Amino acid sequence: MTEGLSAAVAAGDAVRGTTSPNPPVGCALVGPAGDLIATGATSPAGGPHAEVNALRAAGERARGATAVVTLEPCNHTGRTGPCSHALAEAGVARVVYCTADPFAPAAGGADYLRSRGVAVDFRPARVEALQPWLRSVRHGRPSVTWKFAATLDGFTAAADGTSQWITGEAARELVHADRAARDAIVIGTGTALADDPSLTARYPDGSLRPRQPRRVVVGARAVGAGNLARLGFEQYATPQEALAALWDAGARDVLLEGGAGLAGSFLELDLVDAVQAYVAPALLGAGRGVLNRALTDTITGARRFRTTDVRRAGDDVRIEMERDVYGTR
Amino acid sequence: MTEGLSAAVAAGDAVRGTTSPNPPVGCALVGPAGDLIATGATSPAGGPHAEVNALRAAGERARGATAVVTLEPCNHTGRTGPCSHALAEAGVARVVYCTADPFAPAAGGADYLRSRGVAVDFRPARVEALQPWLRSVRHGRPSVTWKFAATLDGFTAAADGTSQWITGEAARELVHADRAARDAIVIGTGTALADDPSLTARYPDGSLRPRQPRRVVVGARAVGAGNLARLGFEQYATPQEALAALWDAGARDVLLEGGAGLAGSFLELDLVDAVQAYVAPALLGAGRGVLNRALTDTITGARRFRTTDVRRAGDDVRIEMERDVYGTR
Repeated sequence: MTEGLSAAVAAGDAVRGTTSPNPPVGCALVGPAGDLIATGATSPAGGPHAEVNALRAAGERARGATAVVTLEPCNHTGRTGPCSHALAEAGVARVVYCTADPFAPAAGGADYLRSRGVAVDFRPARVEALQPWLRSVRHGRPSVTWKFAATLDGFTAAADGTSQWITGEAARELVHADRAARDAIVIGTGTALADDPSLTARYPDGSLRPRQPRRVVVGARAVGAGNLARLGFEQYATPQEALAALWDAGARDVLLEGGAGLAGSFLELDLVDAVQAYVAPALLGAGRGVLNRALTDTITGARRFRTTDVRRAGDDVRIEMERDVYGTR
Repeated sequence: MTEGLSAAVAAGDAVRGTTSPNPPVGCALVGPAGDLIATGATSPAGGPHAEVNALRAAGERARGATAVVTLEPCNHTGRTGPCSHALAEAGVARVVYCTADPFAPAAGGADYLRSRGVAVDFRPARVEALQPWLRSVRHGRPSVTWKFAATLDGFTAAADGTSQWITGEAARELVHADRAARDAIVIGTGTALADDPSLTARYPDGSLRPRQPRRVVVGARAVGAGNLARLGFEQYATPQEALAALWDAGARDVLLEGGAGLAGSFLELDLVDAVQAYVAPALLGAGRGVLNRALTDTITGARRFRTTDVRRAGDDVRIEMERDVYGTR
């Protein structure tokens, strides 16, 4: 079962960034002897869900198997039919899932399966790939992860504005891989005008990764010629407008890449769900801060997060955290 | 052999903070079948070194064994006899060591052992417990590790000065365990006057650990009544005077606990060998910085370190780093 869970989680991880507005779900079909029969993951919107892809790959071997799914099988007909029905019809004997479906119109899959005589186990486990989608459903807006790179003493650039490079190559490669798994990257007009960024997801040799997130600028100032104009981008006046438009366009997982002013606005509006900090083992003593204004005057007012992952990238450290932990209700 | 190395490293770790001015060395005696015969570690100054303690524990079983030692066996007569001679006389067949002895008067142990027909392997490995001592020998002053706790955005206190607690209980427990393994804790007069600290190494219930580091204050201002006066402390006018006096008193491994002004002075004097940063997943936006003045104006002037260890402590992250990596020459 553990093996089936690993396979289901890996299948979901592999399609992060390609499934919105649907969640990147993974499914593994496991035989009575614990053998892995097939896996499947959510297709791009309009295509089959993870369970149906796994059932198709398994064919007749699905009969009597256990389906391990990272999210409760859906029970409603959207652009595709209900996965709960497909599982029952395929003769699956048992369904194990890690996360209850918080999306009301789709919930009820477990109850339906039980009514059809399928054994159903809810085994709560935190599935990383589903967290942004779960937050987006809960808040009714895209999940926002604020990413920044800073020195140990909290500076994103030196006093003269130079910041290349605070972090090393290994960290930059993680950043680009992460961008490819997001629906959109959001920056402020200040960053757009000062840095002329491309906001593309690239390989270390500079070539583009196959999947590119939307490029989004927030702020009133005009962003003229430059990389963004060349590549195409969207601009909105405020964080709220940007998130509403992105939600309508199907985006569920957004990466906020600053700068300090825009990040402060998102924090003040309580729109930061997760933080991804790349910390470099370097000290400047002074420079441009991670934020440019106080969130509080006293320690009990600090914005606190829960650490969800810590990873070394060369000499740098990536700390991932979130405001709340969902998915194991 | 790997098992012997682990046992030797663990024996050395266990005596950190009790051996200065000698290094906390560990030794494991392993039989021909790979069986662990005995271990030993450096006794407090004036007592036997690790090898002699292991040989005494092994008795006759040392004959034909392999001795795994974290540091090259010493070859000189100080307050104890040369370990190289003791190993040869005990009939040890082979000596494996991980770190060459940089202390000139004691070096030459490997050559002596070879001359007596003992097989000697230098297998370079970084032994964490030896790093402060190795740095102290190299610099002719105690090794200085600067420890601080800060928010993700680099603040050690909020704008109103409050800082209890930036980090959580698990991090504070690590801090106290670490204090017990150091020869001295150094703070500035500013911290002494503002915080009235005890600088003791305590258990979570507040009781004192068996071993306490020296308490050292650096600065010209008088530090009157308070915890330090009650417990006893040393005061020196400058970092250089403090380190010279501590070196003479046998201290080799010193923990600098700030504040920002004193840490800046140590950095400007190039007296910080290692940094131990406790990073809390919290944001303040403004407050008291890790440092209180610029070390540089431009990114290429940043003080850079190499990350040697990253560890989670509850939601906090401890990042350990050092200026240079020694011990595997």
